[in-house]
Amino acid sequence: MATMRAAVFVEKNRIVLEDKPVPEVGPLDALVRITTTTICGTDVHILRGEYPVAKGLTVGHEPVGVIERLGSQVRGFVEGQRVIAGAITPSGQSYACLCGCGSQDGPDTRHGFRAIGGWKFGNTIDGCQAEYVLVPDALANLCPIPDGLSDEQVLMCPDIMSTGFSGAERGEVNIGDTVAVFALGPIGLCAVAGARLKGATTIIGVDAVAERMSVARQLGATHVVNFKDGNVVEQIMALTDGRGVDVAIEALGTQGTFESALRVLRPGGRLSSLGVYSSDLRIPLDAFAAGLGDYSIVTTLCPGGKERMRRLMAVVQSGGVDLSPLVTHRFKLDDIEAAYELFAHQRDGVMKVAITP
Amino acid sequence: MATMRAAVFVEKNRIVLEDKPVPEVGPLDALVRITTTTICGTDVHILRGEYPVAKGLTVGHEPVGVIERLGSQVRGFVEGQRVIAGAITPSGQSYACLCGCGSQDGPDTRHGFRAIGGWKFGNTIDGCQAEYVLVPDALANLCPIPDGLSDEQVLMCPDIMSTGFSGAERGEVNIGDTVAVFALGPIGLCAVAGARLKGATTIIGVDAVAERMSVARQLGATHVVNFKDGNVVEQIMALTDGRGVDVAIEALGTQGTFESALRVLRPGGRLSSLGVYSSDLRIPLDAFAAGLGDYSIVTTLCPGGKERMRRLMAVVQSGGVDLSPLVTHRFKLDDIEAAYELFAHQRDGVMKVAITP
Amino acid sequence: MATMRAAVFVEKNRIVLEDKPVPEVGPLDALVRITTTTICGTDVHILRGEYPVAKGLTVGHEPVGVIERLGSQVRGFVEGQRVIAGAITPSGQSYACLCGCGSQDGPDTRHGFRAIGGWKFGNTIDGCQAEYVLVPDALANLCPIPDGLSDEQVLMCPDIMSTGFSGAERGEVNIGDTVAVFALGPIGLCAVAGARLKGATTIIGVDAVAERMSVARQLGATHVVNFKDGNVVEQIMALTDGRGVDVAIEALGTQGTFESALRVLRPGGRLSSLGVYSSDLRIPLDAFAAGLGDYSIVTTLCPGGKERMRRLMAVVQSGGVDLSPLVTHRFKLDDIEAAYELFAHQRDGVMKVAITP
Amino acid sequence: MATMRAAVFVEKNRIVLEDKPVPEVGPLDALVRITTTTICGTDVHILRGEYPVAKGLTVGHEPVGVIERLGSQVRGFVEGQRVIAGAITPSGQSYACLCGCGSQDGPDTRHGFRAIGGWKFGNTIDGCQAEYVLVPDALANLCPIPDGLSDEQVLMCPDIMSTGFSGAERGEVNIGDTVAVFALGPIGLCAVAGARLKGATTIIGVDAVAERMSVARQLGATHVVNFKDGNVVEQIMALTDGRGVDVAIEALGTQGTFESALRVLRPGGRLSSLGVYSSDLRIPLDAFAAGLGDYSIVTTLCPGGKERMRRLMAVVQSGGVDLSPLVTHRFKLDDIEAAYELFAHQRDGVMKVAITP
Repeated sequence: MATMRAAVFVEKNRIVLEDKPVPEVGPLDALVRITTTTICGTDVHILRGEYPVAKGLTVGHEPVGVIERLGSQVRGFVEGQRVIAGAITPSGQSYACLCGCGSQDGPDTRHGFRAIGGWKFGNTIDGCQAEYVLVPDALANLCPIPDGLSDEQVLMCPDIMSTGFSGAERGEVNIGDTVAVFALGPIGLCAVAGARLKGATTIIGVDAVAERMSVARQLGATHVVNFKDGNVVEQIMALTDGRGVDVAIEALGTQGTFESALRVLRPGGRLSSLGVYSSDLRIPLDAFAAGLGDYSIVTTLCPGGKERMRRLMAVVQSGGVDLSPLVTHRFKLDDIEAAYELFAHQRDGVMKVAITP
Repeated sequence: MATMRAAVFVEKNRIVLEDKPVPEVGPLDALVRITTTTICGTDVHILRGEYPVAKGLTVGHEPVGVIERLGSQVRGFVEGQRVIAGAITPSGQSYACLCGCGSQDGPDTRHGFRAIGGWKFGNTIDGCQAEYVLVPDALANLCPIPDGLSDEQVLMCPDIMSTGFSGAERGEVNIGDTVAVFALGPIGLCAVAGARLKGATTIIGVDAVAERMSVARQLGATHVVNFKDGNVVEQIMALTDGRGVDVAIEALGTQGTFESALRVLRPGGRLSSLGVYSSDLRIPLDAFAAGLGDYSIVTTLCPGGKERMRRLMAVVQSGGVDLSPLVTHRFKLDDIEAAYELFAHQRDGVMKVAITP
Repeated sequence: MATMRAAVFVEKNRIVLEDKPVPEVGPLDALVRITTTTICGTDVHILRGEYPVAKGLTVGHEPVGVIERLGSQVRGFVEGQRVIAGAITPSGQSYACLCGCGSQDGPDTRHGFRAIGGWKFGNTIDGCQAEYVLVPDALANLCPIPDGLSDEQVLMCPDIMSTGFSGAERGEVNIGDTVAVFALGPIGLCAVAGARLKGATTIIGVDAVAERMSVARQLGATHVVNFKDGNVVEQIMALTDGRGVDVAIEALGTQGTFESALRVLRPGGRLSSLGVYSSDLRIPLDAFAAGLGDYSIVTTLCPGGKERMRRLMAVVQSGGVDLSPLVTHRFKLDDIEAAYELFAHQRDGVMKVAITP
Repeated sequence: MATMRAAVFVEKNRIVLEDKPVPEVGPLDALVRITTTTICGTDVHILRGEYPVAKGLTVGHEPVGVIERLGSQVRGFVEGQRVIAGAITPSGQSYACLCGCGSQDGPDTRHGFRAIGGWKFGNTIDGCQAEYVLVPDALANLCPIPDGLSDEQVLMCPDIMSTGFSGAERGEVNIGDTVAVFALGPIGLCAVAGARLKGATTIIGVDAVAERMSVARQLGATHVVNFKDGNVVEQIMALTDGRGVDVAIEALGTQGTFESALRVLRPGGRLSSLGVYSSDLRIPLDAFAAGLGDYSIVTTLCPGGKERMRRLMAVVQSGGVDLSPLVTHRFKLDDIEAAYELFAHQRDGVMKVAITP
């Protein structure tokens, strides 16, 4: 039986490279040989034991690779084709999926729904920080890479770009909107790009790291606010001449950013939340107009599926958004433990790393 | 100068009937002689000093009456016409209104937005618990009563019905949805009726007052859950076979109902909040799937304007919804202090009172 | 090899009952033993050679039955379970499906799209006027029948009800809307029911057959207009006091009904077209305000998939709509040729027939 | 009584400059001194007698100017302020406006609706090719010009830009969409810009004039198709590898462009029509999939009102779209007849002219 190298969650604070068997391919699956992948902030939560996964699971959910073998029922693709798959891999066939809720896909639970159930790679099945990954429901999830795009150019599509853009989409950004994005990590930066793609004209990024603020400007932020320069809410209200923003995108997952996002909204505005929270949230009565302000709060888990991936790669191909500045470091899969070390501690100005087996 | 009787907020715990001048009619206004009005839960908050209004203000925001005099610029109506106006009276001409946000209409503030700014009657201008009320922006707000409808038949349109229905509308209830409504006061009952009107097939009402539960069934609830019979979340999860509801409507304004509403949602579901809260809200981390459950929380302030009123009266006229069981008590305007006494203490099974000058 | 009886298209004007092998079950399929099915107007087009299908094809696309055998990859169902499937059977996994366009599902053509490609039964694969039918992509398409519902109660769900309701849904009917439905055959009658379910308050049905007009009233029409009583447009404009309707639903497929539907729309209104046309359509310049009237014309092919079927059966179960008056005649499968004879000539007041193997 | 110079429709083929009284200002009006305006294709239709207006009417509907005098009820503005108003001037207060249908605003007809009723300037009231124009419902329609923007920079906002963008908005362009725009006149060019602003990644412009095709590329077209190079439908299907486009925008108003737009749509696609047609339209049966292709056809009249104008000027200010290449010629108001001569005959590569009193 063939074996492969894979980054495996062993226990809290230990993700290590191990040998595992290359997976067997069921009728609905595709085996993809990974050519490039990356590490996500969520993987760091897993590493630290903050997000529980099974011991022995291969982590990673951002696959770029080549089709090695197709399941017997998977038509329309050929072995050797370059493909990506989304971090979220909906089946397309559950009640949740047929409701348009593929990220909450739970074939076997709650009548087709399960919270976060669409996220399988590196969560409920083996992920892609490995030489090979098995893509489930391959018909719905494999997406060919257009000619001319490099692995790194599409590396952000499976998760960061899909998530960030969804912040603007679910926030229903319209032409002429004013948008604030709280925290300019990779997802916040993609939210900035998404807001611009949807026609926002004033886009205010909030962070304190100079490099991130600089990349935000490249991606479309018209203003950046440094939270170390004083009260963020006051700064944004001043920038908008007291009006507030139409859409506030939360991209960190803390009470502070959530609350500031709510406080800068104009009445009737939308708070689009992307962050992964780690404690209860508080909605202050005044910021919420006692429930009478026509506010909306929406949360979104990274949309997946091959149509989503096709669209995101089309954005890259059209030159509409260039996320290459986000890949700041490159590692071999054999050195992934060092990559985790760097990324988890946010050393050396790292934004995203590219991992190549 | 002509005078009239009006219920006036004097100080905390004192709303009294006083003589005031009949208002003068500006070019954009209409003077309406009130024939029937009612008391709202919000008026009780005002009475108790929980919602601050200016001393000397006439309270009340649910006018049914007859046009007494039209401003010079108000065309298309005739004096003597029977009309209603919404509790919320948007100008139709502010930035907020032209954004579709008339309830947050603030002509002179925050560039056209002001939280709750569309609510003027009995809040920022004199209201309609009086012999006469001045309707601002009359062109946008006066709506003729169709022939054949009595005052009491349209008395719920200005507020209760508009608010309750909006709970289902903003919750985006679709054909075949399962909906839970938390608290079956007048607004919750109208939310039940609204959910049915929008095609929900399973509608679960939550309360503990037998009369309200009974009216809920008349208005379309397929199930009622008594919160005194045990954990509401468990009861609803059992009723839905573990799936949860597509839309949960909060119609009370407490942490308990808000939280239960969130806990019974299926992933990707919508919490539509109508209640007026009096303290900060807490979103429990688990009920929120850490921000990854694709949940939406939307709040709505009663939609107003003459088109809204026209549609609601069309619902009454079509026989689609019969809210007459809600009017349980009737008072003369001269006896309004007794009406407040009864209503504020929820005595004698009162749901809504009709007040006639 | 087991054989079964099946209604087969032989040539123009000949659909006959023949023996065919019981289909073999692939990994993604389910074999369903038909207990009840029906004949659709489209089948009559096929019979007459107006809609081309392959010779030898089994016709019929409205299956109610029992799972006989499940493909190896079809989990979550059990043999012996009572189920339906939609007339349209989307895979859930093509680009079209993942765009929310399952009725135009074309796995192998135009990059995942094919016009009408989601309609497979009795069109591109063998249908269900037979003892058995093979359901493709069974995971996405089999839907269990709730306890307590008879075959006839759910017989309209696969096509007529899904199509008719979609007329109101895609017309975006709102609470308080005025809607006109042109032609009160089974689909038009379901459009009436759908408009009511979505909150329309004035629903005007147009036809000339007394029984249909009578059923329309039972299903929610507030007015019926007989096109033999004079100009339909004038009658509807008179009924609406010159305003016109918010939504007009076309349910026949002729220039006359299409054009009348357009002419009764208020500016900014929506024409929701369900009919199958047999010649080019003409949009009169004046009825279209020269392209400046903010009109929308939308067409819809019957939505399918198990979530849709689940919701429609929930409507039946809730008592919200009772379509049993539509089943006017019953035949054994062995007598299906007589059923076609009756149905194709619209004899004896037939609306829908129930066929039982 | 003060007089002013104004371009007046005298009779077919004669628009001449005449002296007229400066209008008197009613309570809801504002008098604006025009500093820059332009000529629209619709004005040419008026000139030729193809679109009927009253003899003696001042034409023009794209005002840029300075507030000269405010009506008694118009608060929140100051005389001397630089402003624009939209070509369409909704009241904000009719049933149509309160339905979100301000372009079809008809206060006195069809219960608040009138087709094209929101277009008043140079159509039903005196327009702005004059020294002064009276803006009706000034509260809803005057919009201050942000500091730093020149007259020419905002000259396209009142009509061309609002109309063109609406083609993309009503077409519901999403991130990753493929869009075709038929005819690259000023409106088509703005539709290209609008499609890009909404996130389209493939934008195909269709025309035959080299300058227009070149400007289209500057504004975001990724491809241009010359209809003189062969069948447009085939060219677009080839460019999209046989898939077709998600949204087709018609910006001319002919059967040919309308029909091509329909033929290049993928099933389930949207045809967004902006053109002013001059004869009946034909929908070919095959291009329409006999009514079963889930196609939508939507038409849009230029959205107006001050919030719309504010947003469009924000787009200009943000640098998101630069329409200055469209102003190819400049004239004094005194020379407007020569401007009409040039523009009507499309001489000298004219796209738009700037007219300054």
